[in-house]
Amino acid sequence: MPQINADRLLADLRHLRSIGAVDNGVVRPALSEKDMEARHWLKAQYEAAGLDATIDGVGNVLGRSPNAGKALLIGSHSDTQPTGGWLDGAMGVIYGLEVARALREDPDTAHLAVDAVSLQDEESRFFGCMGSRSLCGFFTPEMEAGARDKDGVLLADALKDAGLKDAPRIRLDRERYLGFLEAHIEQGPHLEEDGNAIGVVTSIVGLGGLQIKFEGQQNHAGTTMMSIRKDASAALYALANAINEEFPKVAGPRSVWTMGRAVIKPGAASIVPGYAELDLQYRDASTTVLDAFEATVARLIGEINARGGARVSAEPARVRVAPAHMDEGFRKHIAAAAGKHAPGKWTEMPSGAFHDAGVIADFMPCAMLFIPSIGGISHDFAEDSHDQDIARGCQVLADAAASILSA
Amino acid sequence: MPQINADRLLADLRHLRSIGAVDNGVVRPALSEKDMEARHWLKAQYEAAGLDATIDGVGNVLGRSPNAGKALLIGSHSDTQPTGGWLDGAMGVIYGLEVARALREDPDTAHLAVDAVSLQDEESRFFGCMGSRSLCGFFTPEMEAGARDKDGVLLADALKDAGLKDAPRIRLDRERYLGFLEAHIEQGPHLEEDGNAIGVVTSIVGLGGLQIKFEGQQNHAGTTMMSIRKDASAALYALANAINEEFPKVAGPRSVWTMGRAVIKPGAASIVPGYAELDLQYRDASTTVLDAFEATVARLIGEINARGGARVSAEPARVRVAPAHMDEGFRKHIAAAAGKHAPGKWTEMPSGAFHDAGVIADFMPCAMLFIPSIGGISHDFAEDSHDQDIARGCQVLADAAASILSA
Repeated sequence: MPQINADRLLADLRHLRSIGAVDNGVVRPALSEKDMEARHWLKAQYEAAGLDATIDGVGNVLGRSPNAGKALLIGSHSDTQPTGGWLDGAMGVIYGLEVARALREDPDTAHLAVDAVSLQDEESRFFGCMGSRSLCGFFTPEMEAGARDKDGVLLADALKDAGLKDAPRIRLDRERYLGFLEAHIEQGPHLEEDGNAIGVVTSIVGLGGLQIKFEGQQNHAGTTMMSIRKDASAALYALANAINEEFPKVAGPRSVWTMGRAVIKPGAASIVPGYAELDLQYRDASTTVLDAFEATVARLIGEINARGGARVSAEPARVRVAPAHMDEGFRKHIAAAAGKHAPGKWTEMPSGAFHDAGVIADFMPCAMLFIPSIGGISHDFAEDSHDQDIARGCQVLADAAASILSA
Repeated sequence: MPQINADRLLADLRHLRSIGAVDNGVVRPALSEKDMEARHWLKAQYEAAGLDATIDGVGNVLGRSPNAGKALLIGSHSDTQPTGGWLDGAMGVIYGLEVARALREDPDTAHLAVDAVSLQDEESRFFGCMGSRSLCGFFTPEMEAGARDKDGVLLADALKDAGLKDAPRIRLDRERYLGFLEAHIEQGPHLEEDGNAIGVVTSIVGLGGLQIKFEGQQNHAGTTMMSIRKDASAALYALANAINEEFPKVAGPRSVWTMGRAVIKPGAASIVPGYAELDLQYRDASTTVLDAFEATVARLIGEINARGGARVSAEPARVRVAPAHMDEGFRKHIAAAAGKHAPGKWTEMPSGAFHDAGVIADFMPCAMLFIPSIGGISHDFAEDSHDQDIARGCQVLADAAASILSA
């Protein structure tokens, strides 16, 4: 089996961290100057690893193996959250590079084809998972038209500024690949809490979202009697609390739901609010549960509207993301490698966070491997993992890749 | 009985409207350039009406009658909401001027002492009812220290810019006065809906406020299981809904409560909120009911804290305003005048909105008279009343003033 070089892996990961480093974190949002600097550096590393490297028209960096035979695509994303951690995405990208190098350096595996990839804008500056969508042919002109970041910067302008305006966009050749492997930090506390070193992902949970609007009548809070109010905030509090009381009745064991954004207008202590908005997001590995959540919300909205007061309506806040099931064959290879390098310290688990593998799974078989996040912290400058866990995860991935390609 | 001059009353009211007019409304917040322009114009009108007029150190305009004997203070405030209506405050101010003129013009009442007043900052740009508090000796150095408007402008700077820095502040001489009369638009729908032309105010409701804080733990909305969340928003929705369910059990028939401001941080659909704030305001004419509301909130917070999750705490958002009872003797005089000018079309009623009379009632006897608001609309450019109602209200007030001063 190929041996990864832990020192080289960690050195490259730290170099990537230095591009856009701020305090202990990294600020390298998609298509920013630092993001493009990182992508050009990655392209050079892919080339040094003997791969045929290209930065495509949306900024994906793809390093193709010159070897014959079916290939495995391995990688993740190198763009970060606006104030991101140093491992989210970056670790999986450097794993792809190191696995390609390790297999090439071992005479027994040097003939195998590993393509390394750094995908673009997984973190949704312009459009979530834009890079993986584009590679699979899922990034439609409708998605692209008018796409802007939260500051109003047009995707089209950002691509031009990044020098990508005329670069061709790569579409993956389905026939070339066995599938895609992505490693990632867990971004949650489970592996660490349970003393596990490796998580073999069973599925990436599906995700739905509703934007709920409450249309009432703004009034003076002193002179408007309770009986005639159409208070948008009262309807919001009632619905949100009812959702929290009713969802557990239809939820699965790992369902999560969040109402992290509520806006009440005009938002003054002495004015009966005339308008409010609530964002509801829900995730589960089962489409049945996601459907049950949406049916529950529809029923509760009907009940609140039947009472009078503010008028409640809901519409999808986003396209429903279906749960993505990881390939069972790939999972067996990862589990075998985990059993070798972390005996008794690995587990199967769903991914509560979304990943590019959730997009690519609609195009070809995918699998994912998690390593522990210290304290479960992610999307924060404090995000970190132990060197030993980082190195072990890469070795597991290298073993699994060699085993899948040799099967 | 003295006769008010309806044409003169309406002409003055329209002139006052013209100072700071925007569309159909008025923008004349306390101590703004337009507010001071209006106060200098009022001072001139008071002088023309034979009153000894002064603008004091917080901007109150007081016109003292030269007549001997006990005086009645009559007026309201001429500052407006940031986007205010043309009658809120202004009408009561011009009533004071017109009543002083009408009594002076009638040989039978020319010897009676009516002081007219325009109070400062009833609408809380810097400090609610600052002018009436100052006149009564209730505006403490603690209230004044560091007082700012919502844009950060210091009261001290605004007073300087208004040319009031060195102007003496008037303290009313309790011995001079029988009491204070304030007329106002209703700012609610009751008079209009019931076909009444005059409301004789029985009490100004008391008002309490709590600022409630929810301290939780910010987390990733995909990877943080429900069972370990400390979701500040979930606690807010639960408490707010419980308040709306429990308050009716201890409320009076005209109690109102409002949670018009809720802020959830960081406020993103996919982040479990770590912090939230909720403003609760409640009003009733009975201190017992206000006490019961506060006890209910304390009990509900205890129940929610006992469940775990985010930690909830409450503190007063403002000094409790006690219900203010209008003087029974004054009310009889107003009721008699209302019975004469609006037979069968007047009613006793509480004031759900707060007014300067609610401050001054702690210093000397007060009474209030309401006229109908078209559609119950107030604190809005659309605020309006019929000319006939405006003129009738002033005549009722003039009769009542003459009758009180002659009794």
